[in-house]
Amino acid sequence: MPPAPPTRVLLISCPDRQGIVAAVSLCVLEAGGNIVRSDQHSTDLLGGVFFMRLEFLYLEPEQGDADFTSRFAPVAAHYEMDWRLVRSDQPKRMALFVSRLDHCLIDLLWRWRSGELAVKIPLIISNHPDLEAVAAGYGLPFYLFAIDRDNQAGQEERMLALLEGQADFLVLARYMRILGPRFVERYCGQIINIHHSFLPAFIGASPYERAYERGVKVIGATAHYVTAALDEGPIIEQDVTRVNHRDQVADLKLKGRDLERIVLARAVKWHIEDRVLIYGNRTVVFT
Amino acid sequence: MPPAPPTRVLLISCPDRQGIVAAVSLCVLEAGGNIVRSDQHSTDLLGGVFFMRLEFLYLEPEQGDADFTSRFAPVAAHYEMDWRLVRSDQPKRMALFVSRLDHCLIDLLWRWRSGELAVKIPLIISNHPDLEAVAAGYGLPFYLFAIDRDNQAGQEERMLALLEGQADFLVLARYMRILGPRFVERYCGQIINIHHSFLPAFIGASPYERAYERGVKVIGATAHYVTAALDEGPIIEQDVTRVNHRDQVADLKLKGRDLERIVLARAVKWHIEDRVLIYGNRTVVFT
Amino acid sequence: MPPAPPTRVLLISCPDRQGIVAAVSLCVLEAGGNIVRSDQHSTDLLGGVFFMRLEFLYLEPEQGDADFTSRFAPVAAHYEMDWRLVRSDQPKRMALFVSRLDHCLIDLLWRWRSGELAVKIPLIISNHPDLEAVAAGYGLPFYLFAIDRDNQAGQEERMLALLEGQADFLVLARYMRILGPRFVERYCGQIINIHHSFLPAFIGASPYERAYERGVKVIGATAHYVTAALDEGPIIEQDVTRVNHRDQVADLKLKGRDLERIVLARAVKWHIEDRVLIYGNRTVVFT
Amino acid sequence: MPPAPPTRVLLISCPDRQGIVAAVSLCVLEAGGNIVRSDQHSTDLLGGVFFMRLEFLYLEPEQGDADFTSRFAPVAAHYEMDWRLVRSDQPKRMALFVSRLDHCLIDLLWRWRSGELAVKIPLIISNHPDLEAVAAGYGLPFYLFAIDRDNQAGQEERMLALLEGQADFLVLARYMRILGPRFVERYCGQIINIHHSFLPAFIGASPYERAYERGVKVIGATAHYVTAALDEGPIIEQDVTRVNHRDQVADLKLKGRDLERIVLARAVKWHIEDRVLIYGNRTVVFT
Repeated sequence: MPPAPPTRVLLISCPDRQGIVAAVSLCVLEAGGNIVRSDQHSTDLLGGVFFMRLEFLYLEPEQGDADFTSRFAPVAAHYEMDWRLVRSDQPKRMALFVSRLDHCLIDLLWRWRSGELAVKIPLIISNHPDLEAVAAGYGLPFYLFAIDRDNQAGQEERMLALLEGQADFLVLARYMRILGPRFVERYCGQIINIHHSFLPAFIGASPYERAYERGVKVIGATAHYVTAALDEGPIIEQDVTRVNHRDQVADLKLKGRDLERIVLARAVKWHIEDRVLIYGNRTVVFT
Repeated sequence: MPPAPPTRVLLISCPDRQGIVAAVSLCVLEAGGNIVRSDQHSTDLLGGVFFMRLEFLYLEPEQGDADFTSRFAPVAAHYEMDWRLVRSDQPKRMALFVSRLDHCLIDLLWRWRSGELAVKIPLIISNHPDLEAVAAGYGLPFYLFAIDRDNQAGQEERMLALLEGQADFLVLARYMRILGPRFVERYCGQIINIHHSFLPAFIGASPYERAYERGVKVIGATAHYVTAALDEGPIIEQDVTRVNHRDQVADLKLKGRDLERIVLARAVKWHIEDRVLIYGNRTVVFT
Repeated sequence: MPPAPPTRVLLISCPDRQGIVAAVSLCVLEAGGNIVRSDQHSTDLLGGVFFMRLEFLYLEPEQGDADFTSRFAPVAAHYEMDWRLVRSDQPKRMALFVSRLDHCLIDLLWRWRSGELAVKIPLIISNHPDLEAVAAGYGLPFYLFAIDRDNQAGQEERMLALLEGQADFLVLARYMRILGPRFVERYCGQIINIHHSFLPAFIGASPYERAYERGVKVIGATAHYVTAALDEGPIIEQDVTRVNHRDQVADLKLKGRDLERIVLARAVKWHIEDRVLIYGNRTVVFT
Repeated sequence: MPPAPPTRVLLISCPDRQGIVAAVSLCVLEAGGNIVRSDQHSTDLLGGVFFMRLEFLYLEPEQGDADFTSRFAPVAAHYEMDWRLVRSDQPKRMALFVSRLDHCLIDLLWRWRSGELAVKIPLIISNHPDLEAVAAGYGLPFYLFAIDRDNQAGQEERMLALLEGQADFLVLARYMRILGPRFVERYCGQIINIHHSFLPAFIGASPYERAYERGVKVIGATAHYVTAALDEGPIIEQDVTRVNHRDQVADLKLKGRDLERIVLARAVKWHIEDRVLIYGNRTVVFT
């Protein structure tokens, strides 16, 4: 079948007031657009914050974003909106960060090549050389930044310089270093991490070991945006799997691998498709 | 906290065309309404069927449905809409049908009394006397219609006469008789059944016995609208649970009870809240 | 069909050594028993702790436990076993503790009356009068022990005196008071609590409120044995359900109710059937 | 840590009688073995079929299987056992069959290389050239047997000749041809297939299309042994995932890929570890 025509995604957040949906949908109509999907959420019945994700396409190909934007800008100003307009045919650029474990990396690359993740991957960054061959197998540039206690700040500056102009968002695919504050500042709401526990349980290091010690009957994984506070950023997605008394730490890690890659893949996909809006330390996810 | 003000739910289906959302939301705005939740779905990107569920409230209490309806009727006609407007403060009337198994009945009654199901229950109908005491415990009228091979048509006529004017929809909470065509005709899209398998597997009688024979590793339950074709109506909700080689038929039934009551409760709740739209033999469920 | 003949459950824990299974199964054989189910677990391949649950029945009704015990006692001494022998036809006595929320209580009582839980219920204890009618509906004695800051120790003494000789184990079915140390001492490994979060996340008060604040995408429930450290006892069972940005705290509580009752019911059933062995702060659960 | 010493897995099925466990465990003890895991199952409390999986290791390395076998053979004869003894350090040889879809293949190869699947892979067979590069990337021989209506029998003879002496079992990792009867005869109970539905729903072709048509709310995948009756062999494992009205057939396929690879991987792992016993058209799976 022919490819679906490219759509636009309009993302809005603003104080909830009467008439927003009418005003927005009128702009789309007048600019020749047809809404193909719309999701909205208010944090409260009255007086809350309003979030909207509107996907539309222009019925006449010659119609364009300039026309829409000129109509929409005054509406957005009137309702005090934060907003952005995204084209589905302009894929985001995703930089991958890895260390030694390959399961999340391989899973993301496989989904990318199979067309499931509509994204560009300009480069892979690692603090270990182990996964260079995987990158090579996919024809992707691999940059090694060995990090020790003394050189982290300098190495991170070099990473940031390398990334500048090349990446829209970063995915920490089991990257086992805590990124410094300069990263969080530069890529606010644009760094996705996978943590190998159902947060807020087992924040920090060695969650599987601690899950084993505690004797839990489910283990989990959490994909979240990175903020300055370790493992406390807005959660995008979580899932769990059952374990029992037979499972040693090594078994938890095996079972956890399957969880981690699926939870991370979902979060990355939703981020790419602009389905995730951050609100304080929480997320609205229009799946 | 004070009760939430009553809302309106507007349900629409029509051929998908440009401008529907703008036209509908303008009507709501002009009638003094504020949209608190909106969900929509198109069966195709272009040229499909459009479904919408719009929940709104009037900001001024004196405003009313007459005003809205007079504005909306021409819009609805223009877009060839099937539509209805429902008030959240006018609970539907639910008639329960049971036989001998009590788990679905008790679960629904408990949810109803706890306020989870905003519904009226005018009566309980059964073909067996077993559950009369349960009905009495909740102060609900219980009508026994013993049915054998010869009297089914006549008994069903009497049931229909009893129900007339008393019930908006019927829930078959493990009612172990197949309702005749007169019922399906009278309550089209208004009879919810719980089938104890993950349909379309194990259509018909004795699904747990047949699941055991087949050696499945999951069992399921399915809530669906009743149509003339047995167990083939539009599915509202399904869920499953794991089983293993240790589970005899009796164990499947025990595990299945927990599934059935939860799947049925979800379907009933969504129906009550007008979240389910039927489309051919499928459902759109705005959860 | 006729009822299954009563079985014996033999529970063993001891240092893992060669020959245990042979020695134990020989005792069963010589005492005229036939093993109908056997589960075992070693914490390590070599040098760990060995756990066994052996279910058997005597092929000749006149055979008895005295014979078995006289054969088994020297074996048990030789292998330094902790052990006990339980008859499936001597149901345990379960005392229920409740406060105001009824969902766990009603669920346990329904399972009990339907025959799913082979247990005696001598009494229900509460610190609030709210659920007295539920107890009465099942013909069960209900004892009210109103508790405030000043009288807790005294009230708990009176509860303990009332329970003495009447209860084998206690189930806290959303009992919203922390039991004092005298209880934990007297009923060590015999008090089951349901906590409304996936522990160790949200230990302590108001877990649903805190889950909402944290923006988690799954909520959970945990059944565990009560120890002196709040919410830190051995976990018997956990499960979770998905939530999203639409779920307010009230929605989490509704969804959580279904989780809590199912997780608690499983834990109680496994305890009744002697499937749970405590090992340090962890459990071995032979499901 | 050092590798675990190699264990033996003893698999038994026989008519259930008194004394089996004692007799078997005595043989293990006298041959110098220590039981590290034992699972058993009877199809009925009395008079059923007894299944056992016993994992043990010799405490003295010089002890061996000949000694055990000479002790065990008369016991096995006495109890009319079907049995086999498997060494954990002699990996099975797994031949993979694929067509064009790569997700199951890539997943199995990744698990194999990461050490999760203790197996040898002598070769990959396909009826399409598409996945040759994947095989090459793992250094595995790839054999193309193009099949059309006229040459299937001949091609299958050639495949069988190629496999002879090279493979212990076959995995159909989305191999989209029905294997002929000669295969089923030669590899009885040794061919694992992944079917992309929760069998017995949607037996045969195009299950995702039919699931979409039926409007199900869950889709599933089933790993089973291949028998002469299409999609009706003993089920090893099943799992499901939720779908909704937004999911088109293409979405079901995407979601299904994740299910298929995980369900197949579990089944393959359990088969490799001799955890699956076939009983009529059902399986006992000692996980």
